[in-house]
Amino acid sequence: MVPYLTTALTGPLLELEKRLLDAQPMIEHWFRQQWKGQSAPFYTSVDIRNAGFKLAPVDTNLFPGGFNNLNPAFMSLSIHAAMGAVEKICPYAQRLLLIPESHTRNTFYLQNVAVLAHILRQTGLIVRIGTLIPEITQPTTLELPAGGRLTLEPLVRHGDRIGLEGFDPCAVLLNNDLSAGVPDILKGIEQNIMPPLHAGWATRRKSHHFAAYQHVADEFAQLIGIDPWLIDPYFSHCGKIDFQARQGEDCLAEKVGDMLAKIRVKYDEYGIDQPPFVIVKADAGTYGMGIMTVKSPDDVRELNRKQRNKMAVGKEGLEFSEVLIQEGVYTFESINGAVAEPVVYMLDNFVVGGFYRVHTGRGSDENLNSPGMHFVPLAFDDTCVMPDRSANPDASPNRFYAYGVIARLAMLAASIELDETLNEAA
Amino acid sequence: MVPYLTTALTGPLLELEKRLLDAQPMIEHWFRQQWKGQSAPFYTSVDIRNAGFKLAPVDTNLFPGGFNNLNPAFMSLSIHAAMGAVEKICPYAQRLLLIPESHTRNTFYLQNVAVLAHILRQTGLIVRIGTLIPEITQPTTLELPAGGRLTLEPLVRHGDRIGLEGFDPCAVLLNNDLSAGVPDILKGIEQNIMPPLHAGWATRRKSHHFAAYQHVADEFAQLIGIDPWLIDPYFSHCGKIDFQARQGEDCLAEKVGDMLAKIRVKYDEYGIDQPPFVIVKADAGTYGMGIMTVKSPDDVRELNRKQRNKMAVGKEGLEFSEVLIQEGVYTFESINGAVAEPVVYMLDNFVVGGFYRVHTGRGSDENLNSPGMHFVPLAFDDTCVMPDRSANPDASPNRFYAYGVIARLAMLAASIELDETLNEAA
Repeated sequence: MVPYLTTALTGPLLELEKRLLDAQPMIEHWFRQQWKGQSAPFYTSVDIRNAGFKLAPVDTNLFPGGFNNLNPAFMSLSIHAAMGAVEKICPYAQRLLLIPESHTRNTFYLQNVAVLAHILRQTGLIVRIGTLIPEITQPTTLELPAGGRLTLEPLVRHGDRIGLEGFDPCAVLLNNDLSAGVPDILKGIEQNIMPPLHAGWATRRKSHHFAAYQHVADEFAQLIGIDPWLIDPYFSHCGKIDFQARQGEDCLAEKVGDMLAKIRVKYDEYGIDQPPFVIVKADAGTYGMGIMTVKSPDDVRELNRKQRNKMAVGKEGLEFSEVLIQEGVYTFESINGAVAEPVVYMLDNFVVGGFYRVHTGRGSDENLNSPGMHFVPLAFDDTCVMPDRSANPDASPNRFYAYGVIARLAMLAASIELDETLNEAA
Repeated sequence: MVPYLTTALTGPLLELEKRLLDAQPMIEHWFRQQWKGQSAPFYTSVDIRNAGFKLAPVDTNLFPGGFNNLNPAFMSLSIHAAMGAVEKICPYAQRLLLIPESHTRNTFYLQNVAVLAHILRQTGLIVRIGTLIPEITQPTTLELPAGGRLTLEPLVRHGDRIGLEGFDPCAVLLNNDLSAGVPDILKGIEQNIMPPLHAGWATRRKSHHFAAYQHVADEFAQLIGIDPWLIDPYFSHCGKIDFQARQGEDCLAEKVGDMLAKIRVKYDEYGIDQPPFVIVKADAGTYGMGIMTVKSPDDVRELNRKQRNKMAVGKEGLEFSEVLIQEGVYTFESINGAVAEPVVYMLDNFVVGGFYRVHTGRGSDENLNSPGMHFVPLAFDDTCVMPDRSANPDASPNRFYAYGVIARLAMLAASIELDETLNEAA
């Protein structure tokens, strides 16, 4: 079952999908060249929006949850890719410490941790799970709804090494995005940490990511001869916003206005009669807290108290003052009338699958990864690596291939972004 | 559908499978270390025999046909693995020349070439097929029984570069085992040839391979604490055999006798009451020509004229004088009463699938890869990378995992063997 595109404005996208399909040898060759000089993140997931006329990443997650939502039929792809990643990053490592988010009641998330641990164990690693939750002071086994269990153990630090009681790992895999900052217990440890600590939201900024993506998208668009706007959402950012104190509103309103005008020019160029919109969200952070759909500069001036409070509080109480303003990309995919947004998963530099977030109560111009948002995951029923030139450009293997290409561009941008922030930190 | 083991003597094998399963982290870690210093062949297939009490490779093919027999459901695994291989070996290559065997009527083989070309194209390579058949002087398109077509083109050489009319490839992939020697047109070319020319049967010897395998198997057996004989068939070889002139028979009869005695000791040790047997085959060459099952030294002295003729002629008329004497390994797997022999496929250092050769007219002590042998391929219904510790050691994911391990040992031996023959040639 594959979502349908519910817009008549599919001309440019069909054109784009056709271009991607025709240019496949060039594209794969180009990617191979990129990965000669660049290391892929250990894992990445990319939220993609498909507007029919535009196909673009809107969020790139370096600590992906949701591995439980992938199609179990393609599990072996994940194992293969993880084998490659493990071989590159820790050839001599056998014991891996996995540190997940500090959730104990979110069974969807725990299921993700279980699948991730399973994939890693299938590569032959001995995997144990350490937790940052201070209340967990001894090994604690949680039952999973789908069967199986997960044992969380308290972290133990000896000198510059992190581990568990009786378990000295050679490397650490974070599945925790460090929204609350880097915990002291992880600072200055000698083991290899993947992704690196500076990939956490304490240092990472979406605006850095999309700046890197812009370069990647420009080069790629030139390679295959398309308008980069078709794959790249406009963005800008404002620092020092305090929604509750109503500071920085002018910067925000002005940039929103500018961006809406720029989008309108493009919509006119392509004959799109939908109203342009922008998304305002925290420049640091994930989990969709404080995300706003804005169609006019006035929208950001006329927030009521409730909206201000919602915008002011990020995950784990992180008070953000930096804001990303991102071109809104309609998602015109739907299934049985419900809006569907594709999420593509990668391990190392390989696409290993994905799923659709399907949500009945949301509009095509709203973010589908928001707090309290109970989407239904619909696993991709096809891999993203097998385009079929004999089928039409929008046939599902080809649409999935297009998603895989866009997701890999975002992943490439993330790896460049991480190198840049490492150099800045050094 | 998975073949059954039809022997009561499964004790040692269950023990072996259990050992492999328990040692999985150690095994995968060990393989990762091996691949730090060693490059895997581009592709490899390994014939395995499962005697219930013993699980061992009997043939390692560096120019595998039969990709058409793999489970299409796992095609994406092959594409992933090929992407990795292409990335390593020819990062800047985009045009690949595939040179298959010189068959035009063997549609099974042509189907293999088509699947192989498809896998390579999905990695983004531009693949064209060149032929060594002298009669093909212009592009010739063959219709395939499963639909689709294959275009063979004559090779064109300019100076030290090989290619096709209007096609200058960066690398050459051989799917031709060079039994008839290295053709002049391929000698001294500057492009990268995979596998290297010295992997062809003009230079390669099975006895070299099994000597390298013996070292690998010994080290591996020590690692997981088993008797290496459980995974390693005895072998020896005789040079200068002329079956028609009845020269060298004494060497052969003596070595056959010695080996049967050695096997008998092991059979006694493990309480196996089957008669020992050995396989006599060409030390160079494939395709199962001139393969003999021998249960007594007298068997090799009492050959009639027909048998002598059969043993004297290898593939493409190659007259061999070197012979491999290999411990016969019973294949006690069968499906609906027919004997089944697993063949495992690898691309780069990844297992990508396999199939059973199922043959109704053969005994458990006969070679299933012989001339005129029309086996039925039964694709593995599971990948070889997902052992299931919660199931019993002989559950199919675990048996497939064991096959994958043994096959990778043989592949590792092949890569060591290729390094050694390269150094000898240099």
